[in-house]
Order: sequence, then C-alpha cells, then structure tokens
Amino acid sequence: MQNNGSYQMRTDLALEARESISEADSELRGVRVEEYYHEEEDIHVTKVMIDTKNAAKAMGKPMGIYVTMEAPAMVEPDDGYHREISQRLAEEIRQLLPDMEIEQSILVVGLGNREVTADALGPQVVDNLFITRHIVKEYGKAAYNCEKMNLVSALEPGVMAKTGMETAEIVKGVVTETAPNALIVIDALAARSIRRLNRTIQITNTGIQPGSGVGNHRNALTRESLGVPVIAIGIPTVVDAATIVGDALEKLLEEEKDLAGIKCREKQKLNFAELNNMYMTGKDIDAVIKRVSYTVSEGINIAVGEAFLPE
Amino acid sequence: MQNNGSYQMRTDLALEARESISEADSELRGVRVEEYYHEEEDIHVTKVMIDTKNAAKAMGKPMGIYVTMEAPAMVEPDDGYHREISQRLAEEIRQLLPDMEIEQSILVVGLGNREVTADALGPQVVDNLFITRHIVKEYGKAAYNCEKMNLVSALEPGVMAKTGMETAEIVKGVVTETAPNALIVIDALAARSIRRLNRTIQITNTGIQPGSGVGNHRNALTRESLGVPVIAIGIPTVVDAATIVGDALEKLLEEEKDLAGIKCREKQKLNFAELNNMYMTGKDIDAVIKRVSYTVSEGINIAVGEAFLPE
Amino acid sequence: MQNNGSYQMRTDLALEARESISEADSELRGVRVEEYYHEEEDIHVTKVMIDTKNAAKAMGKPMGIYVTMEAPAMVEPDDGYHREISQRLAEEIRQLLPDMEIEQSILVVGLGNREVTADALGPQVVDNLFITRHIVKEYGKAAYNCEKMNLVSALEPGVMAKTGMETAEIVKGVVTETAPNALIVIDALAARSIRRLNRTIQITNTGIQPGSGVGNHRNALTRESLGVPVIAIGIPTVVDAATIVGDALEKLLEEEKDLAGIKCREKQKLNFAELNNMYMTGKDIDAVIKRVSYTVSEGINIAVGEAFLPE
Amino acid sequence: MQNNGSYQMRTDLALEARESISEADSELRGVRVEEYYHEEEDIHVTKVMIDTKNAAKAMGKPMGIYVTMEAPAMVEPDDGYHREISQRLAEEIRQLLPDMEIEQSILVVGLGNREVTADALGPQVVDNLFITRHIVKEYGKAAYNCEKMNLVSALEPGVMAKTGMETAEIVKGVVTETAPNALIVIDALAARSIRRLNRTIQITNTGIQPGSGVGNHRNALTRESLGVPVIAIGIPTVVDAATIVGDALEKLLEEEKDLAGIKCREKQKLNFAELNNMYMTGKDIDAVIKRVSYTVSEGINIAVGEAFLPE
Repeated sequence: MQNNGSYQMRTDLALEARESISEADSELRGVRVEEYYHEEEDIHVTKVMIDTKNAAKAMGKPMGIYVTMEAPAMVEPDDGYHREISQRLAEEIRQLLPDMEIEQSILVVGLGNREVTADALGPQVVDNLFITRHIVKEYGKAAYNCEKMNLVSALEPGVMAKTGMETAEIVKGVVTETAPNALIVIDALAARSIRRLNRTIQITNTGIQPGSGVGNHRNALTRESLGVPVIAIGIPTVVDAATIVGDALEKLLEEEKDLAGIKCREKQKLNFAELNNMYMTGKDIDAVIKRVSYTVSEGINIAVGEAFLPE
Repeated sequence: MQNNGSYQMRTDLALEARESISEADSELRGVRVEEYYHEEEDIHVTKVMIDTKNAAKAMGKPMGIYVTMEAPAMVEPDDGYHREISQRLAEEIRQLLPDMEIEQSILVVGLGNREVTADALGPQVVDNLFITRHIVKEYGKAAYNCEKMNLVSALEPGVMAKTGMETAEIVKGVVTETAPNALIVIDALAARSIRRLNRTIQITNTGIQPGSGVGNHRNALTRESLGVPVIAIGIPTVVDAATIVGDALEKLLEEEKDLAGIKCREKQKLNFAELNNMYMTGKDIDAVIKRVSYTVSEGINIAVGEAFLPE
Repeated sequence: MQNNGSYQMRTDLALEARESISEADSELRGVRVEEYYHEEEDIHVTKVMIDTKNAAKAMGKPMGIYVTMEAPAMVEPDDGYHREISQRLAEEIRQLLPDMEIEQSILVVGLGNREVTADALGPQVVDNLFITRHIVKEYGKAAYNCEKMNLVSALEPGVMAKTGMETAEIVKGVVTETAPNALIVIDALAARSIRRLNRTIQITNTGIQPGSGVGNHRNALTRESLGVPVIAIGIPTVVDAATIVGDALEKLLEEEKDLAGIKCREKQKLNFAELNNMYMTGKDIDAVIKRVSYTVSEGINIAVGEAFLPE
Repeated sequence: MQNNGSYQMRTDLALEARESISEADSELRGVRVEEYYHEEEDIHVTKVMIDTKNAAKAMGKPMGIYVTMEAPAMVEPDDGYHREISQRLAEEIRQLLPDMEIEQSILVVGLGNREVTADALGPQVVDNLFITRHIVKEYGKAAYNCEKMNLVSALEPGVMAKTGMETAEIVKGVVTETAPNALIVIDALAARSIRRLNRTIQITNTGIQPGSGVGNHRNALTRESLGVPVIAIGIPTVVDAATIVGDALEKLLEEEKDLAGIKCREKQKLNFAELNNMYMTGKDIDAVIKRVSYTVSEGINIAVGEAFLPE
C-alpha cells in the first residue's frame, strides 16, 4: 500500500483488462473487443474498448481504450532494434493521440528509476527521443524545412525516494507551465506471469491510475487530473515476487488433485511479508531494457515526428 | 546568446562581483565587503553585500549577498570528502536561508547535464542529499523521532537539448505545485581563469540570472520569478575556451611591451567563431566532480538537516 | 549449467559451509569453528576452518578458512557508510592476506555487471579503492612520504556476455603480466534466504570455485589456478528465484501437517524451467548497492592501506 | 611526458602522417599516397603507405598503412547512425585485417575512461559490439547456423588512474591468455585543430605507439609488442588546450604583418604550465560520442561479422 523504496511497481492494467473479459463480458453492452494479427511481423494486437459508465463499473476499470501488442520477437536481439515493431507501435499511438492533422505539442514522460536496471525503461526511452519543442520555439518551423511539425518535449521526473515529491506533483507542475496538448507516459510494469516479460507492449488512453481505485488519487496521471489526454505505454519487465510464488504453488496444486480442497487456505497464507518489497527479473535484463527502450522511443519518434516530412 | 547544445555555461557572477569592486567602489554607499579567513581549514571567505538600488546599478548586479569561499584543499583527494569544507559551507547557506528556527520546506535543484562530466555537478549533488519530504508527508515527523525537521525535496530538471523545455519552466511548475519555502540551486560554472577551477564555491541569494541582463528573463531562477528565496551555489568546473585564449594572449602581450599599442585591436579579433561552442576542463575532471559534489551535498545536508537532532 | 546471460550468479559458499556443520561435524577431526560477537557494532562473526583433506572431503568444500560477518546494520542508511563495519572487515581481510609486515602487491578484482544493479557490487567496490601501484612504480614510495607501502591495483573484467571471454581467462592473463602477491576478488552472491540479503559479508581464502566441483575448472579463481593467494569477498544481493519458490512452498507445507507425506514429490516438481534465468531482489537495491559497496571498499582500503602511515 | 590523471591523450598520428607528406615526400621512394572520394556518402579517404625502413625513418613514423576517412556528416544527427559511414569503415578495416577468407579470432579493445565524456569513445564502442567468442566456444558454429564465422571478443581495460596498471600490461596479459589472431583498438584522440573534431576516422595497422618514440615502449600496443596484428581506430574528440591557444595566436599574428618578426619568440612562451592538464571539447560532446561510437561499432560488426551470413 505504501512504498518508500526507490522502485514502485504498477501492474499491467491493460493486459488484465483483456484477460478479465470472459465470453459473457464481451457480450456486455459497452465493451468491444477487436483482435488482429500482423503476420509478417508476428505481432498480435488486442484492443478492448470500454465505452459506457456501466461497462466501466462492470469491468472495474475506467472507460477508455486498452491495447495489448504481443510481439515475441521483442526479446530477441535484432540488427535494427525491431523497427517493424516500432512501426506498428506508432500506428497504435497515433490512433490514441489528439487530431494529428494539426500541429500538437506532446510531452513524453519517462517514469521509473534510472539506477535500477529493470525500472529504467522510462528514462531510457526518453534518452532516445527526437526533441523539437525548444528548436521550434526559438527558430520556428523553418528550422526543419517543413510546413507543419509537432513540438516534442520530454521529462524524467525521477522516483519519490530521490525527489521527496510525488511523480504526479512534478508532472502536473510541468504540464501547467508548458501546456502540452497531450502526454505520453512510459513505465516499466510488473507482469503477472513470467511468460509475458518483455514480450508485450500495453497502450491505453486512460493514463496511469495507481492503487486501482482505492481512493488514493494524488498519484494519478490522467486526463482528469492533468487536463490533457494521457497515453500510457507500459512493458512488463519484472514479476512481483509474491505473484510468482503464488503462481508456482497454484500450478503445483492443480497437478495434485488430492490437494484441491485446501487450495484457498494455502493461497491465503502466501502473503509472506518478506516478499513484499521484492521483485523478480531476468538475468539479461540490462540488454533487454536497452533494446526494448530503443524500440519504444523509435515508435514514439515515428508517431509524433511523421509531420517532419514536407507535405 | 543562444545555445542549443546540451551543455549551457553560466559564468561565475559572485566571483566577478568581488573582483570588480575597486577601492573606490568599496567606499560606495550601499556596498559592503567582509572578508574572513578560517585558518585551520585554509578557507578564505569574501562576502559582498549590495544593499541599495543605486549600488546595484553602479555595480551592474542585483541587490543581494555574494559569498565566495576559496578552499584550495577542495581539489585534493581526502579521506573524508573534506567534511571541514562542508561544515563551513553549511554555515554560509544557513545565513542565506529563511528563518531556520521554524520548519522549512526546501527544494534543491541540481542543474546541468549528467552525461557531460564537467556539467554533472548539480545532478551528482542531488544524488547524495538526504531527502525527507515524502517521509514526513506520509508518516509525520515521528518517523525521525524529532520535534522539528525540515522537508527536503530535490529535482534534476535536465538540459534543454534533452527536454525541449527551459529549465525555468520546469522549476517554476514544480515550485507552484509543491510550494517550498526556499530553493537551493546548484550549478557548474565557467571560470574566467584556470587557477580558480574547482577551488572556489560561490553562494548568493540572488538566484540565477542568465544572459547578464540582456532582457532575456525567461530563464531566471530568482525570488522575483519564482516567488520564494533562491540560494544559488556554483563551482567553476570549466573555462570558456574563448576566455582562455584571450587570457593567454593578454599575458603574452603584457610581456611584450612593444606590442602594447595593438592590444585592443587584437583582443577584438579573438572572437573566433569556432571557439564559441567549446569549453576547457581538466583531465581528472571525473574524480574532481565526484569528490566536490559530495562536499557540496554534505554541506546542504548539514545546513538543512540540523533540525533532525532532538532538541 | 550453462549461462549466456549477462548476469551469472554464484551462491554463497561460506555461509553454506557454516550451516552445513552439524554438531557431529564440528567434532569431526580437521574442522574447527570459532564464533565471536562485537557487541558495540552488533557484528556476529563465524569462522569455519577446514584443515585436512579428509575434512574437506567430508564437508564437500576445499580446505581453507570461511568467515561470515553478520552485520544487520549494513542494510540501513548511515551517515558514515558504516565505518565500524569496514574496520572489522579490514581485520578479517588482513588475517587472510599474506605477511603484511612486508610490502605486498595486491590486485583487487571486481566481478559482475555494472549495468545490472544487483550485480554491480564488484565494479562499484573497485570505483572507490585507493589505487597506488602506478604511482609507486613511477615515483617510488617517496610519493607518499612513507617507508613502506603496498601496491594496490584493480581490475573490472566485465561479464562473458560482453567480453566473449571467461572471467578467469582475463584475470589469469593480468595476473601473469603484473605479478601481484595476492588477489582480493569481490562478487555479489545469490542468497538462499531473503533474510540474509545485504546483511552478511562472506570472506574466504579459498577463492572462487564455480560449479561446485562438477569438473568445470576453467572458471576457477583460486591459488591453484592463479598461483597466488586469492581472498574472495561476497555479499548476497539477490535470491535465486527457484530457491525462493521452493522455500515458500516448504514453509507452507510445514504448516500443513497432512501434506507432509507428499513433500518430496512436490519439491521435485518445483524445478520450473522458466525460473532458471530469473533472480529476485529488493526494490531499493540501487541505494543498498551504493552503500554496501562503499563499506567494502573502505574495508579493503583500511586493510591494505594501513602501511601508508609513517612508522 | 608522464600523466597520472584519469584521461590520457594521444594525438592523431595518422592524420599527422598525411599532412607531413609534402610534395617532395610523395616522390620519396617507399611512400605511396592514394586518395579517393565516395561521392554519395561525401567521404574522402586518404591512404598513406610507408613501405620501407628508409621511408619510415624519413617520415618519422613506423612502416605501415595510415588511412584517414573524412566524413563531415558524422557530426550531424541521423536517423540510422550513418550506416553508410559504417559500411565504408568496414571496408577499410577488412583490408587491414589478416586473411578474412578463413575464420579469425578478433579481440576489440576499447581504450579510455567511461567516466569522462570525451574519452568514452572506446568503452562505448565496445558496448555495441556483437560478441560471439563465448558462444562459439560453448556451442560451436552451429549456434549461428553458418559454416564459417569469426570469434569476436572485447575488453575495456580502464585507465591507469583507476587500475594502477598500464593499459599495455592488461592487454598483453589477455592476449597471451586468449590468443586472438588480431586486435582492433579504439581510442579517442586529441586533434590539432577544432575543424577536425569528430569528423575524421583514423585507421592504421601500426597499432598504438605512445610517446612518439621517445624510448618509452612499455605502453605500446603493436604487433611487435603483442605478437599479433594491431589495427588502431581513432577519432579526434578533444583539442589539446595548449595547441588551441597556440593556433589562435598564430592566426592572429598572421593577420598582423608587423608582428611577423616576433612570431617565434611568442610561440615559445605559450608553453603555459597551467594548460598542461587541460583539454577542450564541444558542448554537445555527450550526443556526439553516443552517435559516433555507434557508427564505429557498427563498422566493426560489419567488418568481422560478415561471415555470419550462410554461404
């Protein structure tokens, strides 16, 4: 509930949204599900749209669009940093951004802690962006020889243990002062399963809502709290330790039929206090973060930089 | 005048202030100069106080206090990171801060570019601060077992080339949102002489005023622009390339008496365009920055953390 | 068995050694156990000495000395980086080093991957060492104004995924070329229990022997393989994921008496392939590694630098 | 002559070689000069070949090949890290490497200090290499599905101030132990002119010979000292401070005809001691190093990795 460590984990809401949709739900009024598969790139996209307040209540999630891109190739080394994934990511981002026919000012926020490898996704994405706002402000669009271009700015707010401030306080202040038209927020997520690590990209236009609605809204990065659209992009890079222990146990118990009866009792006991501040990640996490962050920043560069081309 | 590089240099105003005070000036009404020497630590302190608008106009600097600590030991390795210098720095900081008898909320801002060694002073100072604001906000002072304590927060805004935003925009937004009582801003400076590199600490309560009054106030970090007192701490870590070439030439010409007549003409020509985006620094700058930033952050920790002691 | 990731874990042999000593063992000829407690610093030291080949065979470990310092304070922030722990560490190191009455040339090797926070202990220890070999070689001892002093050098060999070479190949080459009298090797370890994370320092004069004797000796860093004494210092900073899942399950099963009978079967199944390349660590690992590495490097500086004092 | 700082500069021998070739020289027996221009990529290549001992003596440089690639585009941002420059660099490297028709084992050495931005070229090049030696050793070529492939390994030896060892000691030890067929050594250079900064790549098969032959051979990284061919690749990233002051002065004096007579005297005096440990670099050096190091590592990957393609 409270976390003063230097690494605060959010779980992957978008993925959850998709999975919690049972057959019954999908016939629920107000919920639409679309799926498509890009064969050439081996990318599977699932899009869940929650369109009404009733549906949001039934789903336990805010109204909005939740996109999950499953791209197994992302974990594997590649000469060109998987530009094909960046291209598809750019398409999804552009659909969630405000009217891209006119010029927009986009602030990209890289959440997380640069000093903790598995949490450095946001900061590393920000490192590779093509930043233009200051140039256009100073010299005008002429600097880039094009009639129309977006203003891109970026912020790495840092973590509360190092700043003493809520991330939302810092972001809100900067949004108020620089008045972007939209935010893109990047964060590393905690997956609920090892199999998803570094393989999926979650994109949503509902922003970031920590604490799953437990009343603590001071940390929210949403259109409601900030006054502008907020696209959140997340990639699961760690697994919560308690989750993984629970999963392992469950798998075991499933195979032992004679234990089925005590399942509930046991799962309850798995709330080992000592696992609370732990996370699990892969041994090659440094190489993965470096590669994946490049794929994401290229995706953003393509999505908001396309206007650079003379028209 | 404009700089889109990732490293923007400010020259050392405080030092300048002291040096530009000729004998005549010091009898000027509204300017006071104090000097004292801490023999044990070999630290020489000069304090220039500009008290009136007339004096400020005559001096070409804002009203306020300009402190220069000369500590030759600072460049040399030391087992304890020169705690004696941190102590003296803390004393000077406390004199410029608002009423420290009551609790204060202090925001420390580390200017500069972490990726450029000579410009990493601000970010590295911020790395070693004792941050308390979030703890006190969450648990109250009880968390530290003391009746009174300051709230310390910290921000590393980054450089314009990477954020697309003026530093002042970011800082102003965060100040508005988190409402600290005072700011302490740290920055690496460009010295006018190699002899001063990494040997002096400049402290002023006039904040940071870029562009030396050329009308460009959007970058100011001052009480006027931010609404709260701003203490600026700077250490010269580089020398401007054009300056050093000019100085070398001047030195030479002084020795060549027959050249005295052409001095002006020559100095004028030294505005080599190609030197404009260059800076000069020492070959051991990585070790120096690491050591000096620790001395400064300890100074700040002592200055604002003293209230931690139970009273 | 094989690991091509960029983070290779060794488990904590010294700790194991202590724990595997049952009462019966301790009466074994050739095994001595000493324990002492430094009350002021709250440091518990256990020393296991395996003196004979028979005892080594019985214990399944090489002959030598295994020291475990338990210092619970190490995980907590402290103004002075726990100098009291560094002092006690220095004492233990000196007892294992060759004759320190005469000058020695010591090579410190920082194992691990700087880019993976939990594995950066070795590289960060090396960052804070007081290196003297090159100075003495160039200017003689006169440079330090002392009659006797050790030559300290340091190496950060990197990990196989980035070098393409076994660590042992790199270290052996450097030892052959620079001929130190002894090695001190630092490494982050995988603990078998969360409770031990970042709380104990393991010191042994048996060096590093990967693969627990399975015949693969090409990676050994030992007196046998390198020709000089090798002191290994390790601190558990991660927990192996498979281990933690196993432990959690065992704890659970212990409480469910009716499950006791199926214990073995279940534990067998816990060898989930997907956990093989995972590790678990604390969310504040960045702050912990920074602090602990400083404590260790100060310990080494005290141990091998004491001769600097004029006698 | 001696330098204990953490940043040791080598000047750019290859470039010097080209420039010191006057018309007379080029008719010298034993010296051949070739120049060609790649129009599409705007890359100018100059190749100086010193073929005889007499020519080497006359030129004051070892026998061998000195290639200078002038690629003005290299300083400018580019979407694809200037792959066209990497391609041309790869061609030049391959011509200097041993017989690439058969499999080779290549050790790439990244010289310099990662902590000093302008000196981080070597370490950053090494970060982006495609390392294969350990994979092939463990699994055979089958791991890459190709009949023939080179073994690539890499080393970042660090600087003497941090290791206490000469770079040559470390490299020699590793070469002896791992027996590569050839070395590629990368280093940041000190240019003699600002105009050359980050714009040229120097490639030579004479290795690295510090001290310009003043008798100090302990630092040499050459075929003679290491027993295998050594290709050195260098890029000028800094300007020596004393050089730049001298150049500025010279330029000035050229314009002042009446000063011509005192030229020599003045230049002599410019040996300011205080400039000895200083260097000058550009304010955007962090972005430049990041980009250029990528171009070089891709060049190496192409040069030695081509064999990966199934034949």
